[in-house]
Amino acid sequence: MAVTKLVLVRHGESEWNKENRFTGWTDVELSDKGRAEAAQAGELLKAEGFAFDFAYTSVLKRAIHTLWSILDKMEAQWLPVEKSWKLNERHYGALQGLNKAETAQKYGDEQVKLWRRGFAITPPELTKEDERYPGHDPRYAKLKPAELPVTESLATTIERVIPYWSDVIKPRIASGERVIIAAHGNSIRALVKYLDNMTEDEILELNIPTGVPLVYEFDENMNPIKHYYLGDADEIAAKAAAVANQGKAK
Amino acid sequence: MAVTKLVLVRHGESEWNKENRFTGWTDVELSDKGRAEAAQAGELLKAEGFAFDFAYTSVLKRAIHTLWSILDKMEAQWLPVEKSWKLNERHYGALQGLNKAETAQKYGDEQVKLWRRGFAITPPELTKEDERYPGHDPRYAKLKPAELPVTESLATTIERVIPYWSDVIKPRIASGERVIIAAHGNSIRALVKYLDNMTEDEILELNIPTGVPLVYEFDENMNPIKHYYLGDADEIAAKAAAVANQGKAK
Repeated sequence: MAVTKLVLVRHGESEWNKENRFTGWTDVELSDKGRAEAAQAGELLKAEGFAFDFAYTSVLKRAIHTLWSILDKMEAQWLPVEKSWKLNERHYGALQGLNKAETAQKYGDEQVKLWRRGFAITPPELTKEDERYPGHDPRYAKLKPAELPVTESLATTIERVIPYWSDVIKPRIASGERVIIAAHGNSIRALVKYLDNMTEDEILELNIPTGVPLVYEFDENMNPIKHYYLGDADEIAAKAAAVANQGKAK
Repeated sequence: MAVTKLVLVRHGESEWNKENRFTGWTDVELSDKGRAEAAQAGELLKAEGFAFDFAYTSVLKRAIHTLWSILDKMEAQWLPVEKSWKLNERHYGALQGLNKAETAQKYGDEQVKLWRRGFAITPPELTKEDERYPGHDPRYAKLKPAELPVTESLATTIERVIPYWSDVIKPRIASGERVIIAAHGNSIRALVKYLDNMTEDEILELNIPTGVPLVYEFDENMNPIKHYYLGDADEIAAKAAAVANQGKAK
């Protein structure tokens, strides 16, 4: 039986990645570099002969624009796309908008690393009066109040990503459709931890490079067989290292 | 009870509108002018305070890019979008790719006007061996063989547009969602004829300008009350006249 492939792409660099700020659900735009990364991902997928039947992305424009750029390069603008908040970046609570290096200077590298990488540690909560509270945004109008986060850890991010994977995405792949997901560092980490049965420590150390297609191959029972990045290995390693270093004080 | 609004937008000028060629289902790109028209439509909708819950478009990139540009201007990239071939431009059969003025010189203005505007007159059919036959394109892979057109008249276009309107789009609007449709000259004419109970002669003379939001208002029973274009009236009239003149020999 033919191998089934899934492609995951973390959005290209955003304006706030560049400024080294905690972004979370803030709807910031791709930087010029991020747009170039997205286009490159599309060219790479096309050159490698990939084709898709369906695409998933978040409701945040840095992921949506990354997907649109890929679809443009592949001449597949017609592809059906489902956008879900369940693929959003992890919500960073009251840290959203703060500079990571400044936060590290103030609270120390270790506290910031805990907030960024502690498996079940949540940053300070937003209040519902805060203008950053998702309940004020029309794109989340259909969510139940209990679904609207005021902060998230990687653990709570997993609690929304994995049911969406199991109930929505996985059945589509199992039915034979070729799927691409354009999402975020932590929604992709949530999925990778689940697919590869990683420990909390292992996922803590895993960094997903921006704009690089990550291919998972599954057997006929939807068990992951292997995964690999497309593109130049040295470039990918450098990108992952850059992500890992973002939280350190400078 | 509040008035329900629907916004229709014909895609901006395409590369082949500019070259005055029969386009139909050929997946040609917007021209620079078309991209500017799309952006202007988005700015206008934003300035007029429009907001949407759902968008429909065709599977042709000139309509999809028009929609994307509008969503970008409205900061609504997150909007759910359904793309359907049922909103495609009318299929122009074996005329697809031919220059309208040349075709008019060869066959005469009247024959071309019949092909373009004759209500139930179909252009010459494509053969299934023709590379332009939609059965060769992966985006139509899920269609039944009987659904794949080899040519269409406005009458047969209506036969696919109106069921999609009645079964899919209208119930969503009736449920209270605010909808925008980015489509094509003839799929919009099909809908307009139906909504306004126009005769075949009336629709023959109606020209939809490119990139101008057309607003329909409905009462609580989904009966159309009135419709109007957004924007400068003189500019819109000039655009409609330009569309009407495309089929004439020069």
